[in-house]
Amino acid sequence: MSNKLIVQKYGGSSLTNIERIKNTAARIVRYAKGGNRIVVVVSAMGDTTDELVSLAKKINLNPSEREVDMLISTGEQISSALLAMALHKRGFDAISFTGHQVGIITDTYHTKAKILRIETKRIKKELESGRIVIVAGFQGISTTSEITTLGRGGSDLSAVALAVSLKADLCEIYTDVEGIYSADPKIVPEAKKLAYLTFDEMLELSSRGAGVMQTRAVEVAKKFNIPLYVRSSFNKKKGTVIMKKTPYIEEAVVRGIALTENEAKITLCNVPDKPGIAARIFNELASNDINVDMIVQNVSHKRTTDVSFTVPKETLLKAVKISERSAISIGIGEVFSDENIAKVSLVGVGMKSHPGVAAKCFSALAKNKINIEMISTSEISISCVVRKESGRKALKVLHLAFELSKEKNNGK
Amino acid sequence: MSNKLIVQKYGGSSLTNIERIKNTAARIVRYAKGGNRIVVVVSAMGDTTDELVSLAKKINLNPSEREVDMLISTGEQISSALLAMALHKRGFDAISFTGHQVGIITDTYHTKAKILRIETKRIKKELESGRIVIVAGFQGISTTSEITTLGRGGSDLSAVALAVSLKADLCEIYTDVEGIYSADPKIVPEAKKLAYLTFDEMLELSSRGAGVMQTRAVEVAKKFNIPLYVRSSFNKKKGTVIMKKTPYIEEAVVRGIALTENEAKITLCNVPDKPGIAARIFNELASNDINVDMIVQNVSHKRTTDVSFTVPKETLLKAVKISERSAISIGIGEVFSDENIAKVSLVGVGMKSHPGVAAKCFSALAKNKINIEMISTSEISISCVVRKESGRKALKVLHLAFELSKEKNNGK
Repeated sequence: MSNKLIVQKYGGSSLTNIERIKNTAARIVRYAKGGNRIVVVVSAMGDTTDELVSLAKKINLNPSEREVDMLISTGEQISSALLAMALHKRGFDAISFTGHQVGIITDTYHTKAKILRIETKRIKKELESGRIVIVAGFQGISTTSEITTLGRGGSDLSAVALAVSLKADLCEIYTDVEGIYSADPKIVPEAKKLAYLTFDEMLELSSRGAGVMQTRAVEVAKKFNIPLYVRSSFNKKKGTVIMKKTPYIEEAVVRGIALTENEAKITLCNVPDKPGIAARIFNELASNDINVDMIVQNVSHKRTTDVSFTVPKETLLKAVKISERSAISIGIGEVFSDENIAKVSLVGVGMKSHPGVAAKCFSALAKNKINIEMISTSEISISCVVRKESGRKALKVLHLAFELSKEKNNGK
Repeated sequence: MSNKLIVQKYGGSSLTNIERIKNTAARIVRYAKGGNRIVVVVSAMGDTTDELVSLAKKINLNPSEREVDMLISTGEQISSALLAMALHKRGFDAISFTGHQVGIITDTYHTKAKILRIETKRIKKELESGRIVIVAGFQGISTTSEITTLGRGGSDLSAVALAVSLKADLCEIYTDVEGIYSADPKIVPEAKKLAYLTFDEMLELSSRGAGVMQTRAVEVAKKFNIPLYVRSSFNKKKGTVIMKKTPYIEEAVVRGIALTENEAKITLCNVPDKPGIAARIFNELASNDINVDMIVQNVSHKRTTDVSFTVPKETLLKAVKISERSAISIGIGEVFSDENIAKVSLVGVGMKSHPGVAAKCFSALAKNKINIEMISTSEISISCVVRKESGRKALKVLHLAFELSKEKNNGK
C-alpha cells in the first residue's frame, strides 16, 4: 500500500453539478483507498464565479475589489462543502476548509493577491487523523484579515502552493481536457497530446493562449520543482506531465503552438530615439496594471522610432489613454491601436540549439500568403502577430509545417 | 442632526434580487444621511439558504452539520458584499464582514450555535471612520475556529446580539410584513396591526406560530431590554414596537392569536404514575434534540396516567422512536402519534389578571362545534389543540370572540 501525499486540484468543469461532484468524489476515493493522504483543492462549481461577478456588475459597474473578493470567494466554499458531503456519503472522512482556515496567507492586493505563506498545521493534523482534506481554492486571507482571491485560475496556484508547503509527492491538476496539446484541438483536430512538457515550455504556452493552467501556478511549480500532472477528470487516461526536464534525450524543437486572439496592438509613432523614453512609457503602463506582452521597436530613422506592443483587449482602452497622455508629455507623434490581430507562438526548449526555426516559420506563413506584422522571439519561443482573420489559418499551417501531429512529437 | 447608533436587520425578502438590494441600499442611505451610525445585518437573498440545503440533500440525505454550516453561511456573505457594492454606488462608504471577521464567537453546536460573545473592536473602528458596517447575519465562528450558523431566523439573533454588544440606540427588524398582527392576516383579513407588544407576548406568539421573528432573538432582546422595531422594508409605515412594557395604562387581555399547523401530538398511554417517569421520557427526548412544546398529563387512574405532548412535525418520527424505546424500558403501555392537529394560542399580558378568558375561549369554540383535544395555559397564554381541519376556523372564531379587529386593540 502506497502512502503518498497527493494534492489534487479539480476545476469548475469537474464540479458543474451534483452528478459531477459525486463522480469527483468517486475518483478521490480510488486514491484514498490506496492508502494515500489526499488534499483536494476545488474551484467553484461550473460558471459560478462569472455569475457572481455579473451579479456584482448589475449593482455596481465598478465594484470594490475587496467586496468582489468577499462575494466570489463563496463559490469555492460551496463546492468544497458539497464535495465533503459526497465523500461522507461514500463512507470516507473528509473535511472542507476555507483558505482562511488552512492559513493561506496572502498580501493585501484584492482580486489578484499573492500567497505569502501557508500555515500547514491544521491540514497536517487532519491528514494525520486519516481525513481527506478539501480546500477551497482561489482564496486566502490577507495579512490584515481580509478575504482575498488569487486571480483567474487561482485554484491552480492554491494547489501548487499547497503541494510545495506540504512537500507533496504528487500534484495533479484535473481539468476538462486530457492534457496539453501541440495546438488547440478545437482548431487543429490532428493536434497531439503531449506526454511531457518542461515548465518553461508550459509557461510560454500558457502565457500565449493555451489557457489550461494559470501561469503563476506554473511559475511556482518551476521555482520549487514540483512536477504537475495535468489530466482529465472524465477518464483515466494519462495526461501531460510538466516537469523541469522531459525524459527525452533530445528536446523537441517545437513542442506546441499557441494562438491568442484576445490581444490588441498599440503603436506609438515617431518616438524620440533617446535613452529612457521607452522606460517612461512602460513604467506608466505597468503602474496602471496594464500587462504588456510583446514589445517591438523598429530601427531608428531620423532620430525617431516606432514602438509597437500588445496588451490584453480588455485593457486596451485604458492603455491607449495612458499612452496618449505619455505621448503628449514626451512628445511622441501619434498613437494607433488595432484590435484585429492574432498572435501565433511556436514554443519548444530545443529551439535555442536549432537554427532555422524562425526561417521555416516565416516561409510557411509566406507560402500561405499570411503577412507578419510583428515578430518577437525568446530562447524557447517565436511569436508572430498576424491579421486576426489569418490567425487560425496560421496555427494550422505551422502545425503542419513542423509536423506536430506525428508520433513521438520530439522535434524535427 | 441625530447621531444614533442603529442596528438594522434586513431579511431575505428585502434582498431577493438586484432591484431589492438597491432599494434596501436606498433605505439605509436615508438613515445614514441623518448622521446616524449604521450597522446592517443581512440574511441571504430570498430562498438561497433553502436552495443550498436542498443541493446538499441531493448529495447526502444526512449531511454533516459542520459542512452544512460551511455551505449555507455563504448565502449571507454574498448578500452582504452585494449590499456594500450598492451603497458604494450611491457614494456611501460601506464595508461588509463575515460573522468571523466581526468576532461573533459562538459555541461549537453546528446549525444551531449559541452566541457566546461579540468582539466589537473592528465594527467600532469602522463606524468611527464613518463607514456603514454590513454584517453577514446568521453566522459566527466557534471557539474552535469553525464556521457556525445560528439556526432558522438566526439573522434576527445576530442583529439583537450586535445591538446589545454595541449598546445601540435602536434595533430595527425589516421584514416582508408591516408588523405583528392580532392574527395571521392571510387567514383573518380583519386582523389588526399591533402598535406595541411586550417581549413576553412576542415570545408566546413567535413560539406559537407567528413566525415573524426568531424566538431566541426576542429572548435576548428581553434579557437586555433592547426594544425591537419590526417593520416592512417595502414602505415607510410604522411597524410594531416590541418592548418591556407597552405604553398603555392597562394591558390587553388578549393581544393576538397564533395558529400552529406544523406540530404533531404523541400520546403515551398507561404511564406508571410514579415520580421521575415523566422526567426520564422528556430527558431522553431533550438529549436527542427534540423540542417538546405542550405537555399535558391527565389525572391518574389506577396507578397509571396518559401523557400527551406536541413536537414539531419534522421531528415526529424520531420522537416516536425514542418514545417507543422509553416505553419498553419503563413499561409504558402504548405510544400513539397524530399529525392531524392544529394549535390555537391566545396571548396577552393582561390575561393573568382577567378571569374568564379561558371560559370565553372554550365556549366560543364549543358554540362553533370545535372540539378541544388538549389545553395548556401559561400566565399570558392559553393554547388549545384541535383537529387540523378546524384550526383556521378556530382562529377566526376566537379573533371575533375577543374583538381583536376593533380599534385600540387594548383588551376586552
